[in-house]
Amino acid sequence: MSAALRVEVINTGTELLFGSVLNTHISYFGQKLFSLGLRIQRQVTVPDGDAIREAILEAASRSDIILITGGLGPTTDDITREIVAALTGRPLEYDQSIFTEIQKRFAKRGAIPTSRVSRQAYVPEGATVLQNDFGTAPGLYLPARNEIPHLFLLPGPPRELRPMFEQHALPILARFAGNHELTARVFRTAGIGESAIEDQIGEQLLAIHGLELGYCARMGEVDIRVIGPASVVEQASEIIQKALGPQLVATDEIELEQVVVQQLTDQRKTVAVAESCTGGLLANRITDVPGSSKVFLEGNVTYSNEAKIRTLGVPSDLLDTYGAVSEPVARAMAEGSLRRTGATYAISTTGIAGPDGGTPDKPVGTVFVALAEKGRDTHAEKLLFPLDRLSFKQIVTQHALDLLRRRSLHETEGSE
Amino acid sequence: MSAALRVEVINTGTELLFGSVLNTHISYFGQKLFSLGLRIQRQVTVPDGDAIREAILEAASRSDIILITGGLGPTTDDITREIVAALTGRPLEYDQSIFTEIQKRFAKRGAIPTSRVSRQAYVPEGATVLQNDFGTAPGLYLPARNEIPHLFLLPGPPRELRPMFEQHALPILARFAGNHELTARVFRTAGIGESAIEDQIGEQLLAIHGLELGYCARMGEVDIRVIGPASVVEQASEIIQKALGPQLVATDEIELEQVVVQQLTDQRKTVAVAESCTGGLLANRITDVPGSSKVFLEGNVTYSNEAKIRTLGVPSDLLDTYGAVSEPVARAMAEGSLRRTGATYAISTTGIAGPDGGTPDKPVGTVFVALAEKGRDTHAEKLLFPLDRLSFKQIVTQHALDLLRRRSLHETEGSE
Repeated sequence: MSAALRVEVINTGTELLFGSVLNTHISYFGQKLFSLGLRIQRQVTVPDGDAIREAILEAASRSDIILITGGLGPTTDDITREIVAALTGRPLEYDQSIFTEIQKRFAKRGAIPTSRVSRQAYVPEGATVLQNDFGTAPGLYLPARNEIPHLFLLPGPPRELRPMFEQHALPILARFAGNHELTARVFRTAGIGESAIEDQIGEQLLAIHGLELGYCARMGEVDIRVIGPASVVEQASEIIQKALGPQLVATDEIELEQVVVQQLTDQRKTVAVAESCTGGLLANRITDVPGSSKVFLEGNVTYSNEAKIRTLGVPSDLLDTYGAVSEPVARAMAEGSLRRTGATYAISTTGIAGPDGGTPDKPVGTVFVALAEKGRDTHAEKLLFPLDRLSFKQIVTQHALDLLRRRSLHETEGSE
Repeated sequence: MSAALRVEVINTGTELLFGSVLNTHISYFGQKLFSLGLRIQRQVTVPDGDAIREAILEAASRSDIILITGGLGPTTDDITREIVAALTGRPLEYDQSIFTEIQKRFAKRGAIPTSRVSRQAYVPEGATVLQNDFGTAPGLYLPARNEIPHLFLLPGPPRELRPMFEQHALPILARFAGNHELTARVFRTAGIGESAIEDQIGEQLLAIHGLELGYCARMGEVDIRVIGPASVVEQASEIIQKALGPQLVATDEIELEQVVVQQLTDQRKTVAVAESCTGGLLANRITDVPGSSKVFLEGNVTYSNEAKIRTLGVPSDLLDTYGAVSEPVARAMAEGSLRRTGATYAISTTGIAGPDGGTPDKPVGTVFVALAEKGRDTHAEKLLFPLDRLSFKQIVTQHALDLLRRRSLHETEGSE
């Protein structure tokens, strides 16, 4: 970790401040830079226009490297390139090879670039062009000059920025990288709250000299982040692993669904899902994981009662007697999915996501989750998550995945 | 719109810079403040610690209102409250009523708050407490004092912050609100690129005096944002609507899936989905919309060939002859879903999401989307989106939803 080198990030774009778009750059840069021993000291978002110039000047006085995103596109609100050229005293020069690349990209779709697009072929003198394999706007690297530190100009859209950053910017940044004196580790937990975690491990961890400690709570999970010299992080890791046991999902920032798919793959087991209130999110999270086709057989989003009957074989008298949001129906859904698919495990969800549909008996947020497995009794739980619709879907799938993780974990350890 | 009042946002949290967490606050604040005629001029993210103090001092010199998120929790890295108390010369006072609320919240889960949690009951002298209905950390409002502008301290987790902001912070902010001289409007498009849009409408819009214009491209959609006096925005709206026609998804920042669910609801039509490569995302996006249960009957995530055969009735010889990723199979999936569910429309997706599974003939990114409707020929398309797995899933569902939107739009207009 280089203590001396300060990295700042400037995100440009009125749309980022205006509410139209989520800024995903920081979390991405943070991870990539740490792997080089660099850390972001500060991040600023400014609207398109003159504020970009001010932000660069402010950051210049404090930092060694500035990453700037956005404002490289073809439209008239894209002016980062021009601002930086003026600020660093580098005239813009037309680069025919860039325009040729743009023409090729348009030709693939049978189109011809308009004159508007040719703006993107102008490069500040002495800048290194960072090729864009997924769009027309090339990135730029300008070495430090005139009191302005090293600048990286990168496109706004993540699917253009990320491949460019990894292939073309990171190799340059690696020259500035620190000496990796510090390591970082993240422990991801599920099924336990932030303050309960600190009650269990906080005092022991705070007693370790030279350890930087942080907690981060999200929907259904808490991350514990430890940073420090390798030996210190090792000491902390032992305390955390011993204290948290099966509540520890991963010793890394990997998603719960990745852990589940990995466990099932290792065990050559399969899963099917029968969703009502989570509406496909459970299947979607599992299939987000590359290689999930080895373990995921089928998902059925049985939103209507008719779908529950015809696809999962839920008896209609159960629906009449207990209602769709009930433990017997959750069990029948999971068991129906198991019969239908022959999977090792089947999970079901049925609940009231809201905002409407709640009753005094079953308020919005009520949910039943069931886990069926061949030759074993079906396990079912009633839970209450009175949240907005999307948070509800997220935390219910989190809970369902953690149920599956713990079940297959116990199989591995032979402790159940 | 108040030209005089400057709002800045400071997000605190090492995890935000470290790559663990996505910052969703800005887009949220941006939307809410604009409704009061206020706009965010700048946003900064700083790590936990002394940088918070520096950032407040810097923002203080430029702004009238500062919104600060994070660092109000129970753990030792939560120090925003203490920093602000020191900076504004307001001693921290213990507020028993806050602790009583915390106790009640713990009691609901059968728990007792630890002494650690009681830190959250301390309030800087003269501050207004903003009640937290979804967590233990209350928010704080500190009126301007000692060269420090109005401060709002808000909790980091969005599900705590948002209800608090709407119920308790916005009414206070409304006192500072501008005079709404400006209006903003966003037009969302699908199926057309950013520079093609500007080619169609750019010149006409730039010719309008006093219009602020911005474009924002995302996966499968582009937003056009116009800001200005009402008459000017009206003039721009007419140009945009006339030029873009059916490529215009919405005259507001609403999601494509909301438009689709609304159209189907108005027309009393229903939809079912049969997904392979999108793995549940299509069902998930539709069921994200409140009220979607009226139009969405069933989704089947038929990941394995067996699932395609047993659930959608895809003939096994089609799978043998053409492979799962083929036009005949996409058609058979959509038609099978239609037969199974009796929905008005059924959409299917089958493709290669990658990173593995591509062939020279069908590279990663190849996808077939089909739309079946009773009494009409099934429509099928072959597309190529050579992207990472998650972007691929996103853009394929975007395409599928837009196909459905255009089909049902034509129904409404009787033009097909």
